[in-house]
Amino acid sequence: MLRHSVRRFTTTRLHFIANKLKTSDLNQQTLEAKYAVRGHIPIKADELSQHILENPDDHGLPFESIISANIGNPQQLDQKPLSWYRQVLSILQYPHILDLASSKGVKELFPQDIIKRASTLLKDVGSIGAYSHSQGTPAIRKSVAKFISDRDGYPADHNKIFLTSGASAAVSYLLQILSRDENSGFLIPIPQYPLYTASIALNKAKPICYYLKEETNWSTDPVAIRKSIEEEKAKGIDIKALVVINPGNPTGAILEESDIADLIDIAADHGMVLIADEVYQENVFTGKFVSMKKVLSSLLEKDPKRYSNVQLASLHSTSKGVSGECGQRGGYMELIGFSSEVQDVIFKLASINLCSVVSGQALMELMINPPKEGEPSFALYKKETDTIHDDLQSRADALYDAFVAMDDITCNKPAGAMYLFPRLHFSPEQYPELFTESEEAGIPPDDVYCIKLLEKTGICCVPGSGFGQVPGTYHLRTTFLPPGKEWVARWEKFHQEFVKHYKK
Amino acid sequence: MLRHSVRRFTTTRLHFIANKLKTSDLNQQTLEAKYAVRGHIPIKADELSQHILENPDDHGLPFESIISANIGNPQQLDQKPLSWYRQVLSILQYPHILDLASSKGVKELFPQDIIKRASTLLKDVGSIGAYSHSQGTPAIRKSVAKFISDRDGYPADHNKIFLTSGASAAVSYLLQILSRDENSGFLIPIPQYPLYTASIALNKAKPICYYLKEETNWSTDPVAIRKSIEEEKAKGIDIKALVVINPGNPTGAILEESDIADLIDIAADHGMVLIADEVYQENVFTGKFVSMKKVLSSLLEKDPKRYSNVQLASLHSTSKGVSGECGQRGGYMELIGFSSEVQDVIFKLASINLCSVVSGQALMELMINPPKEGEPSFALYKKETDTIHDDLQSRADALYDAFVAMDDITCNKPAGAMYLFPRLHFSPEQYPELFTESEEAGIPPDDVYCIKLLEKTGICCVPGSGFGQVPGTYHLRTTFLPPGKEWVARWEKFHQEFVKHYKK
Repeated sequence: MLRHSVRRFTTTRLHFIANKLKTSDLNQQTLEAKYAVRGHIPIKADELSQHILENPDDHGLPFESIISANIGNPQQLDQKPLSWYRQVLSILQYPHILDLASSKGVKELFPQDIIKRASTLLKDVGSIGAYSHSQGTPAIRKSVAKFISDRDGYPADHNKIFLTSGASAAVSYLLQILSRDENSGFLIPIPQYPLYTASIALNKAKPICYYLKEETNWSTDPVAIRKSIEEEKAKGIDIKALVVINPGNPTGAILEESDIADLIDIAADHGMVLIADEVYQENVFTGKFVSMKKVLSSLLEKDPKRYSNVQLASLHSTSKGVSGECGQRGGYMELIGFSSEVQDVIFKLASINLCSVVSGQALMELMINPPKEGEPSFALYKKETDTIHDDLQSRADALYDAFVAMDDITCNKPAGAMYLFPRLHFSPEQYPELFTESEEAGIPPDDVYCIKLLEKTGICCVPGSGFGQVPGTYHLRTTFLPPGKEWVARWEKFHQEFVKHYKK
Repeated sequence: MLRHSVRRFTTTRLHFIANKLKTSDLNQQTLEAKYAVRGHIPIKADELSQHILENPDDHGLPFESIISANIGNPQQLDQKPLSWYRQVLSILQYPHILDLASSKGVKELFPQDIIKRASTLLKDVGSIGAYSHSQGTPAIRKSVAKFISDRDGYPADHNKIFLTSGASAAVSYLLQILSRDENSGFLIPIPQYPLYTASIALNKAKPICYYLKEETNWSTDPVAIRKSIEEEKAKGIDIKALVVINPGNPTGAILEESDIADLIDIAADHGMVLIADEVYQENVFTGKFVSMKKVLSSLLEKDPKRYSNVQLASLHSTSKGVSGECGQRGGYMELIGFSSEVQDVIFKLASINLCSVVSGQALMELMINPPKEGEPSFALYKKETDTIHDDLQSRADALYDAFVAMDDITCNKPAGAMYLFPRLHFSPEQYPELFTESEEAGIPPDDVYCIKLLEKTGICCVPGSGFGQVPGTYHLRTTFLPPGKEWVARWEKFHQEFVKHYKK
């Protein structure tokens, strides 16, 4: 390969050929960042999928298609988009529809409240083909502020809301501004969503892990967090932020109000930023989601001095919930308690990216401001959302039931989100050959399990090592989104054979 | 303000209040990055616009609205989106339209070829609400590859194409992977589009400026570039990439094929990456756009050894051209000559962001694969694109004519893009009071000019200092997009009074 050839001469002009880039020439942080959700197992799954597509009759694999359980991507599977969203967005793309709104077919496609909402949004946005304000269209931010204040019972300010491309863009801005140097630390839950470790690595900052307690349904442990803070501070680490994912990804747990208050106390004591990743707030099966903003607002009411220094960034997205509109890249971030100078820096980063996609901004408005009872679209909206919610719940239950019945697997029942994070009880004593294979391949045992699962069944999930776990424990994360029971049966059979083969 | 209060005790619990974040606690690179296109003048313009909105009858300003000439945002002004794009996107948002395609009103809205293209795209994409492949939907990448090979007469590989959120996301990936350390240098044209200096600052790398020659219509000077490379190399700078913006932003110049070949020679000699920002390739009034990929392919054909080490990233976008769909965030990057290991790192960064907005990916397909002669949508498409093209040209001409008639202003006639970059011939000898004001305010004279222009006329443009210019010269960048002649007359009057007031 030419890129390995060093300083040779061409025959024609005695010309020295400079080398091509090697990975060692690159920003080493970009090499170190890891993102398992789209890492080596999903990449392998893509290759298999391509292979089946190109060789439909003789692919030689023991399955006919890939089950993508590695990422919460409902519409890639069988989830239909909500008509309400898509009807309005359809008009925003082609406003000329409004001119023919009374003709027969068009009337059937677009009820009166859809027409009305689309007209209002068009007035607010202008064309969705124009760049918006860097922070997002003001009228939509006002609508988001109203949603937050209705949800929490405390006011929200549209000037402190940023419309973002999913929640990922918000995480990226926050981690980028807060990573002052290599001693900037970020407290992240373990297991975590790997966007956090990836962003920390890209910014050359330090992840500080706090373990969630699996035995008490992945609860937080404020005593351990405080201890960890003291230890890191003693080493000279300047802890910039505490990341909280609620409802939990990958754990599916929902925090109690008192847990949230404990975390806010920690932030107040240490003047650190709280990053509340609340993108699964609509995916709740049992218990109740309480926003961190609400708990903070109530604490501020009781003891304004104690909490006056708390800075909270709360994130939401159109990708999850019953919306599941991942590909449309809508999201918002609310900033509470930040100085205007710091907010200005975030504004500048948003400006450099010009704006988030404007159709995604409009989608956020539709998500947080759905049709109301009595409006023409309400019945269909209610039916569709109820169906999706029930579907998700029954899929979660079915997969949970399957896991708890499997040998050497335990699993907490998810209260929310879109995932199960079962524990694989593998030990070197009981599964010696698995640990030998793992060592030889240089990958953890849960990774070996997931690779074999993919190769035998076509089911693509992600090993716990991609999210972090207590050393010596092994897990995997799977969405419960794929439809039907056949894939679960495939998994059960695989697991049975796996245990039979490996267990001593 | 509380954020300035240091270590005080509350009365209730002897509790030490940790400080809030100050900007000095942040990543200093995020403070240093500058982005004038949405910098202090556009922010001031936003405030004035808000003020007028809130006080329609007594705003006290000498104008009724802001003319946003600071950014190429055609649909914020009067440019209508192309029906072809929007009709197909409308169906992608609400595929149920296809079920009623034969009913009267619907048939009128969506001709047969629109229905067909939408059906094909839906088959390719699935739902636009699902995350796509991190690199973008394969079928759309194949369509982009065909566009490139038809344009250039040389093959393109869809596996080396990334669909991105505008061209900005591509620039961000490239600058991030290439910025190895503080000695990583990037050759950028001056004047430049400030996304480059901002991204270089964010990555703590070093901008190396090469001046475009205003006197020969902003042409490149390969001799000066080579000299600059030698000087920087002698200082220990590792030059990673050479950025070329063609057609030029803010200059409006179009490079000749031989100019491009000279730049490729430089890259070959030094093994540096070429970043070809070609987002204005459809905005051509005089001369001919030739892509860097085409020139490189032809050189590779003639002398494969000499050019085998060249690595080119070529960027395109749906935001410019006759499309002007800025808010839809579509774009692509083609990588040529990169090693697969380096491409894998870019793929990982794209994966961390999950995917670019899928409707923007579809829009890219529609842009590069428009209706053909004989198809039902062709006539309207042709009429609309011709009108936009003619409109842009006549607006460019009108504004150009106005500038060349103004005292102490010279201006190169733009061959392409969306901007004029006139030179303001201000000197301390002739404009002493302007230079005194400039010094007192701590901002350059062109910045003073643009602030006064905004305050007196409501016209918002960006001083040349935001793009870079030869020291001692002063410019401004304005789009020629705003409609009508009234705003140009306002500018002429302002300039006349400015010269009268300041010139000795």
